[in-house]
Amino acid sequence: MSDKYFVHEDALVETDTIGTGTRVWRNAHIMPGAVVGENCNIGENCFIEGHVVIGSGVTIKNNVAIWDNITIGDDVFVGPAAVFTNDLRPRAHIKKTFCDLEATVIKQGATIGANATVVCGITIHEHAFVGAGSVVVRDVPPYGVVYGNPAQLRGFMCECTRELPATDGRSQCECGLAYVITGQNITPAS
Amino acid sequence: MSDKYFVHEDALVETDTIGTGTRVWRNAHIMPGAVVGENCNIGENCFIEGHVVIGSGVTIKNNVAIWDNITIGDDVFVGPAAVFTNDLRPRAHIKKTFCDLEATVIKQGATIGANATVVCGITIHEHAFVGAGSVVVRDVPPYGVVYGNPAQLRGFMCECTRELPATDGRSQCECGLAYVITGQNITPAS
Amino acid sequence: MSDKYFVHEDALVETDTIGTGTRVWRNAHIMPGAVVGENCNIGENCFIEGHVVIGSGVTIKNNVAIWDNITIGDDVFVGPAAVFTNDLRPRAHIKKTFCDLEATVIKQGATIGANATVVCGITIHEHAFVGAGSVVVRDVPPYGVVYGNPAQLRGFMCECTRELPATDGRSQCECGLAYVITGQNITPAS
Repeated sequence: MSDKYFVHEDALVETDTIGTGTRVWRNAHIMPGAVVGENCNIGENCFIEGHVVIGSGVTIKNNVAIWDNITIGDDVFVGPAAVFTNDLRPRAHIKKTFCDLEATVIKQGATIGANATVVCGITIHEHAFVGAGSVVVRDVPPYGVVYGNPAQLRGFMCECTRELPATDGRSQCECGLAYVITGQNITPAS
Repeated sequence: MSDKYFVHEDALVETDTIGTGTRVWRNAHIMPGAVVGENCNIGENCFIEGHVVIGSGVTIKNNVAIWDNITIGDDVFVGPAAVFTNDLRPRAHIKKTFCDLEATVIKQGATIGANATVVCGITIHEHAFVGAGSVVVRDVPPYGVVYGNPAQLRGFMCECTRELPATDGRSQCECGLAYVITGQNITPAS
Repeated sequence: MSDKYFVHEDALVETDTIGTGTRVWRNAHIMPGAVVGENCNIGENCFIEGHVVIGSGVTIKNNVAIWDNITIGDDVFVGPAAVFTNDLRPRAHIKKTFCDLEATVIKQGATIGANATVVCGITIHEHAFVGAGSVVVRDVPPYGVVYGNPAQLRGFMCECTRELPATDGRSQCECGLAYVITGQNITPAS
C-alpha cells in the first residue's frame, strides 16, 4: 500500500498501478494487473479483474464487478450494483480464454445507473446517461439518455445533467456549454 | 458491541444506536450516525450509511445498500440485492452534498422485492408491495402492488399478502382485516 | 478445509460436503448443511444457505445468494449478481418456516444471465438460457431462450450456444448435436 492512495484495511489490493488520491473501500478487491487512475472512489465489495483499465476521477459505488476486457474512461460514474458482463453466451461447460471475451467500453463522463445491466460488446459513449435498472444491449451515443429493458434512447443530457433538446441545430445549455445536434448525433460546439 | 443485539464477528458496526434483538450478519457495515431499531435482521454484505433511520422489525436481506437520506419504517421487508439511490442524475465530476440528495421513504410494513431498483425522491407507502426485479420511479400508494420496468400499479394486497379487490366500497379480507376502497385509495376500516 | 478443494482465506465455509476441485473465492459464505459438487467455482461474496444442493461443474459468479429450497443442477452457469428468491410474498412481520418456502430448480446445463431475477416456485429446464437482466416468473422449457421483464420465450439455443430453428422436425446444429422440435418442445435426437 502506498501513501498516495487509501485502501481500507479490509480491502484487498493486488496491483500497484493505482493513482494518487484514489480510495478503495471495505472488502473491495482489485486483482493483479488492473490499472486504476487518480482520484477514483472504489466502493465496498467491488471487484476489479486484472485485464481492466479504469481512468481518473471515476466513481464506482458498492457491489460492482468490473471484469476482464472492460474499459472505464475518466470521470465515469458507475451506480451501486450495476452489473457488467464479458461473455455473450456463457455456458459452464465451455471454458473461455481472454480472446473469447467481448470488449465493453464506457467512455469519458458517462453515467451507468444503479442496478443497470450492461451486456458486453458495446460502447457507451461520452457523457451518456444510463437510467437505473436499465438493461443495455446496444451502443449508446454521446450524451444519449437511455432507460428501460431493453434500454432505448429517450433523449439527450448535457454534461451538467440538464436535458438537451432533440431538435437539429445549435443548442446552448443553461450551464453555458453549447452543442450541435444532427439527428441522433450531438457534438460539443465552441 | 452490546449484549442487547448481535453483530457477526466479520461485520463492522460503527453506531451505538441499534435496538435490542437486532442481528447484523457477516460483512455488513453500518456507518456512524445510523439509527437501527429493535428486532431487525441486517443481511450479509449490507451497507447502511450514516444519515439513515431504520425502524423496528425490519428485515433487509443480503447485498443491500441503504444510502443517506433514505428512511425505512417499521416492519419493512427489503429483498436481496434490492437497490436504492439518492441522486437522480449522478455525474462523477459533480460532487454532491447532503442537501443535494433526494429523500426516499419506505413506510411501515412495505415490501421491496428482490433485485428491485428504487429511484430516489419517492415514497413507497404503508404495506405496499414492490415485485421482484421492478424499477420503481414514482410513489406507490398504501397496499399497492407494483411490478415491471417501469413499475406500474397492478392491484392491492392486504397486510397478510392476500389479494384485495379493486372495486370501490368496503372489503373484508379472509384474514379479518377490513378496508375501504375508493379508486386507488385504500384505507383500513374498523 | 480439505486439500481436495480450495477455499480463499477470507471465505467462510461451514459444510464439509464439497466436492474435489471446487474453488470458493473471497468472502463467499457457505452455511452448514449445504451440498456442493465437484469442480464448481463459487465467486466472491456469494452466499449459499444450508438447505441447498448444487451439482458438479457449476459456475456461480460474484454476488449471488442461493437460498434454502433452491436446487442447482450440474454444469449450470449463474451470472454475476443474479438474484434468487424463496418466498413469493414476503412480509417482515410474517415469519416463514422451511415448509412455507417455494422450491426453485435450475436443471443441468442451464444459464442464468447476469443480474437476472428468478422468482421462486419455477423450474428452469435443461440447457435453458436466461438473458442478462431478465425477470423470470414462469418455467423455462429445455433449451429455451428467455429475456425481458417479464422474461418471455424468444427462441431456442443448443448446448453449444448456437441458435436453434423454431420449426418443427429434426434439426442438426453445426456442432453436431441433433434435436427433434415439436412446438415449444425440443428433445435431443440420436
